[in-house]
Amino acid sequence: MNPAQPIKVAIIGASGYAGEDLVRLLLGHPHADLVSVTSRQYAGQTLARVFPRYSHYPRAKALGFSEPSAESISKQAEVVFLALPHGVAAEYAIPLLQFGCRVIDLSADFRVKSASVYKEFYAHDHPAPDLLETSVYGLPEVNRAAIKNASLVACPGCYPTSILLPTLPLLRSQLIKSTGIIADSLSGVSGAGRKLELDYLFAECNESMRPYGVPKHRHLSEIEQELSLAAGGPVVIQFTPHLIPVTRGILTTLYLAPSEHFADETAAEKLNKQIAECYEAAYGNEPFIRVLEGKALPDTKNVIGTNFLEIAWRLDPRTGRLIVMSAEDNIIKGTSGQAIQCFNMMCGFPETAGLI
Amino acid sequence: MNPAQPIKVAIIGASGYAGEDLVRLLLGHPHADLVSVTSRQYAGQTLARVFPRYSHYPRAKALGFSEPSAESISKQAEVVFLALPHGVAAEYAIPLLQFGCRVIDLSADFRVKSASVYKEFYAHDHPAPDLLETSVYGLPEVNRAAIKNASLVACPGCYPTSILLPTLPLLRSQLIKSTGIIADSLSGVSGAGRKLELDYLFAECNESMRPYGVPKHRHLSEIEQELSLAAGGPVVIQFTPHLIPVTRGILTTLYLAPSEHFADETAAEKLNKQIAECYEAAYGNEPFIRVLEGKALPDTKNVIGTNFLEIAWRLDPRTGRLIVMSAEDNIIKGTSGQAIQCFNMMCGFPETAGLI
Amino acid sequence: MNPAQPIKVAIIGASGYAGEDLVRLLLGHPHADLVSVTSRQYAGQTLARVFPRYSHYPRAKALGFSEPSAESISKQAEVVFLALPHGVAAEYAIPLLQFGCRVIDLSADFRVKSASVYKEFYAHDHPAPDLLETSVYGLPEVNRAAIKNASLVACPGCYPTSILLPTLPLLRSQLIKSTGIIADSLSGVSGAGRKLELDYLFAECNESMRPYGVPKHRHLSEIEQELSLAAGGPVVIQFTPHLIPVTRGILTTLYLAPSEHFADETAAEKLNKQIAECYEAAYGNEPFIRVLEGKALPDTKNVIGTNFLEIAWRLDPRTGRLIVMSAEDNIIKGTSGQAIQCFNMMCGFPETAGLI
Amino acid sequence: MNPAQPIKVAIIGASGYAGEDLVRLLLGHPHADLVSVTSRQYAGQTLARVFPRYSHYPRAKALGFSEPSAESISKQAEVVFLALPHGVAAEYAIPLLQFGCRVIDLSADFRVKSASVYKEFYAHDHPAPDLLETSVYGLPEVNRAAIKNASLVACPGCYPTSILLPTLPLLRSQLIKSTGIIADSLSGVSGAGRKLELDYLFAECNESMRPYGVPKHRHLSEIEQELSLAAGGPVVIQFTPHLIPVTRGILTTLYLAPSEHFADETAAEKLNKQIAECYEAAYGNEPFIRVLEGKALPDTKNVIGTNFLEIAWRLDPRTGRLIVMSAEDNIIKGTSGQAIQCFNMMCGFPETAGLI
Repeated sequence: MNPAQPIKVAIIGASGYAGEDLVRLLLGHPHADLVSVTSRQYAGQTLARVFPRYSHYPRAKALGFSEPSAESISKQAEVVFLALPHGVAAEYAIPLLQFGCRVIDLSADFRVKSASVYKEFYAHDHPAPDLLETSVYGLPEVNRAAIKNASLVACPGCYPTSILLPTLPLLRSQLIKSTGIIADSLSGVSGAGRKLELDYLFAECNESMRPYGVPKHRHLSEIEQELSLAAGGPVVIQFTPHLIPVTRGILTTLYLAPSEHFADETAAEKLNKQIAECYEAAYGNEPFIRVLEGKALPDTKNVIGTNFLEIAWRLDPRTGRLIVMSAEDNIIKGTSGQAIQCFNMMCGFPETAGLI
Repeated sequence: MNPAQPIKVAIIGASGYAGEDLVRLLLGHPHADLVSVTSRQYAGQTLARVFPRYSHYPRAKALGFSEPSAESISKQAEVVFLALPHGVAAEYAIPLLQFGCRVIDLSADFRVKSASVYKEFYAHDHPAPDLLETSVYGLPEVNRAAIKNASLVACPGCYPTSILLPTLPLLRSQLIKSTGIIADSLSGVSGAGRKLELDYLFAECNESMRPYGVPKHRHLSEIEQELSLAAGGPVVIQFTPHLIPVTRGILTTLYLAPSEHFADETAAEKLNKQIAECYEAAYGNEPFIRVLEGKALPDTKNVIGTNFLEIAWRLDPRTGRLIVMSAEDNIIKGTSGQAIQCFNMMCGFPETAGLI
Repeated sequence: MNPAQPIKVAIIGASGYAGEDLVRLLLGHPHADLVSVTSRQYAGQTLARVFPRYSHYPRAKALGFSEPSAESISKQAEVVFLALPHGVAAEYAIPLLQFGCRVIDLSADFRVKSASVYKEFYAHDHPAPDLLETSVYGLPEVNRAAIKNASLVACPGCYPTSILLPTLPLLRSQLIKSTGIIADSLSGVSGAGRKLELDYLFAECNESMRPYGVPKHRHLSEIEQELSLAAGGPVVIQFTPHLIPVTRGILTTLYLAPSEHFADETAAEKLNKQIAECYEAAYGNEPFIRVLEGKALPDTKNVIGTNFLEIAWRLDPRTGRLIVMSAEDNIIKGTSGQAIQCFNMMCGFPETAGLI
Repeated sequence: MNPAQPIKVAIIGASGYAGEDLVRLLLGHPHADLVSVTSRQYAGQTLARVFPRYSHYPRAKALGFSEPSAESISKQAEVVFLALPHGVAAEYAIPLLQFGCRVIDLSADFRVKSASVYKEFYAHDHPAPDLLETSVYGLPEVNRAAIKNASLVACPGCYPTSILLPTLPLLRSQLIKSTGIIADSLSGVSGAGRKLELDYLFAECNESMRPYGVPKHRHLSEIEQELSLAAGGPVVIQFTPHLIPVTRGILTTLYLAPSEHFADETAAEKLNKQIAECYEAAYGNEPFIRVLEGKALPDTKNVIGTNFLEIAWRLDPRTGRLIVMSAEDNIIKGTSGQAIQCFNMMCGFPETAGLI
């Protein structure tokens, strides 16, 4: 693809929060040309009507939602984003790939490499097991080379992004043990999608804090897959998501066991230095990872509306544990922004194009 | 004391959120007669003016805030509530006890039995070490007998209440190990008090989720003291508090290790039954503890505005851990409501008087 | 009815926010015996299961939701609360009244005395026009005598309560003109009911402020009816409701024209005194109306969770207008609490029973 | 000034919400070079440290806050933004203008042309009355020509922007009367500034709705000045601001009287068409004004984070009134974004530079 030319792109399923954010990011993207968006619910209406917030883009006034059709879209777009429920996404990915499109899938359909693990966590047979081998897990900071050439990118889930990015470098460098990992996460309500369930009404969420999906949330499947790859052996973790009355954001607190004890202050200082170096090596040049210094701790307020992920850590000499905390916008770095980051890499654009 | 007679009570330091809630609970209490409230800031104003919400109580219109004076208060009240900062509370407790009042202290001054641990966590010498022996840790469900006869009750902190109540029975019955305990807690902003700091402005807290006080929060001192008592040996735990944009509520997620493995479903069922029996034995008759059944998980929405604490648990066969979750109103069960519960016990009133 | 005996009561349609609050208030009511609650959605489940918050009431554990049946309920309960959609409520009111029950209806079905006005605003024929004459508009502060003996009470809407209570005394005493009245109201999201519409999802309401129903909201029909009665002639007003991201509360700002100019400070002082006297005469002995003094202005925070309504006013010498502001809990004083107030009057109980 | 060259700019008083937003907008501005920011409170710290959210801008890491000094800043910057309290702003404007800088003032100091009106509303003598004649009221859609050549621009207040933009075209075209105008506004809490007052604590604002500043808010002075200019004679309006628990946004509901009655549907249709044409003539080519069509009504959710202002209107045949509603981000279109819009015009840049 030629970076000088805008790339024609389409979004299938643009009516949810992730789809809406893709619309926003692609309308404002300097190298993308949004030629098609689909939504059964909004078919026939313009983008400007459905999302008045973006109506100042000329394209938003010109472009209407259409019924989803893989064949028709494949004739218009080179890259297609799927913002569909799991199970449904695969149905579109198969023909689109056959028609020669490159596909960036925001669903869970191609994240897990094992069809049987998929079935265990998603409770139905994998709809396209043949594609699992070619799909690339779209975590830019980890799979850059593979993403560049991928025809099918499976963008990570929002929780996995907030857990994997802080953990993978520590695991790969063996600074932490691969056992006993606990991830305690807090998510804004947009993470539940634009979904008609009583649980997500304002009056049910406001002034409420609650865990859910305890103890076996679906995202465990991809989290453990990627941690296992980094650790070189099977990793099983504890993961507890909570629903919090904010619209956007995920805050994750990780409880980790350093590989070596740090009995005294000297040892703690040494370990702190090693962790700092590990993150510097992994993320020093990353445009969207912010490793906090000094007394600062992650705060979702500082990342919502952006593609950034913040990381900070503390050693606890009393317990011997390493506490790592991260913050991200669940819909951007956790979903659509990350998809754009993959898109930029796939097309040879600057990785930050349309994101800063 | 004679239950038929209302008891004359006073509040020293009634201008913060805990003090205001004590005002509310005592104005509505069937057996309490609020005869004095103090606040430097509001001295000279009536309760009704400062807290219009309670102005329908005749006493709120009649009673004005005065400057705090232990001697003067001791002449009016039999029981005195202290809603003062740590360090300051002890200054009033000493003379009040000498004058013969019974004291219910909401500060941290008398919770920790060791003056040196107090100094480690609160960074100043204990202001009244002689009183530490006689003070009673005011967790009603645990110290009922001692509270009844106490002259000085130290009400537990809000986080400790949410952590101790779900953990103590399991620890006492040795269903869990005393090592490796992790408490991950979420608190509403009222927990920071009515305090003028930028961090607690609406625009700084709204749409924000953030950890703080990592890894050594002051409440660890009393939590570990009480856990150690239950375990019969020193317990060190991990505790991470987070600030969440709700006014009230604490949600705690506990990561615990069962004493015995539950390798198969039969073992898990057995353990689940043991835990259920353990909680039934501990709390089956408790008026304010709600152990949830079926699929229900704690939600602060279901306890705010009340003195109830909700508990639920899940075994995770994948990790071998026991996850216990609790929810409470940080200002009521976590502070003022618990103080009233202690007051009821001290005076021989029904424990729920003024609380349901 | 004999005040010494608890009255047997039932709620038809107890699954929405108003119904849930009736459950709460009736479970805690000293003179009511809740014998039946119905809900198609929850039929077969206990109150304690559906509303864990109230599970400490023994009755909540014993009583299950049943399918609604007027005949069966009429055999159990003397007084029946209807918390049903308009149109549906009348279907139950007719047989219940025939079977001899007294009915307290929270819907709009019996508020408007004219079947044609009802049709104009509710877009369907009135389902029981014969009952319109006997129904009593259940605004306790205004219709006390009629409510006491009513067999059918139509509880006012939440907006009307917040508008009528501050306006009626001024209109009756002719301190204000009956023309040009503007009511600008802000409501929390619970006002929309426990309803599955995208508009009321947390992520759609949070950080959103928006007008709706402009310029002809249904509540205008009952507001203008009651204002006209007080003015002794037809009154037409402007009313604009707004949706605000709080769970509970209505704040109303009223723009009114004093009958006489207050050109100078003396005239303004005189008018202020007349208004104060007018409110004192109307509400000085009312248990749930709080007319604010000094610099205080209404704040929903001070009334939510209660049956109180706050009122304050300001004269504007620059424009010659009188600004009156009110605050209430939309679900309590605006709906269920007011219904309980009516119930108390109908049964000869103290008006504050179960409400303070 | 040469558009090809970035313009060197400074911000005096960059620690509040308006100042922070200026920092954000100027760091990302394609034609601005932020060379100096001042803050007594943060002097010595880098922008990246104080505002971690913007730390990815190289300039944010390089640039530190300094103590404010007009002379020193005048040597570095061509255009200086003042984000200071009223009264203080003028103290810096005087020397900066003398040193040859162009000044964009976000305070109220130069908005009102009359020093005596200023004193009436701000309660102190005007600190620089000589400058009042040369200052330009920085409402881009209204004063474009004057802003271009101004040396001193006084950016409008947040409420005035939300009131003037919907009202001025109607007044100028005499579609509405200049009497009886009512503006009822709702503001997010950031409008109160990053200020340490109890009233703006999270726990005081959350679940609260309240009017304030009734009936004579300071912003009336500039609103009435600009309305009077448009009407060609003195205009006095009613204005009621309310504090709402959102971080950002202003929603204004305007009650206006059309100049001619619209007794029947034909007249109403005609008037609707005239209003539509009036707004089209005024704002059809404006990049930041969005006049809504169809059933859409303004919602702050659709404008926060942007420089857009939304307008919609409804005629009410029952009352003869015209209801106009607007929504904006109080900190962007209401403050800092508008300042950037002025900056762009003053420097000959595209008006949307750095804003879309």
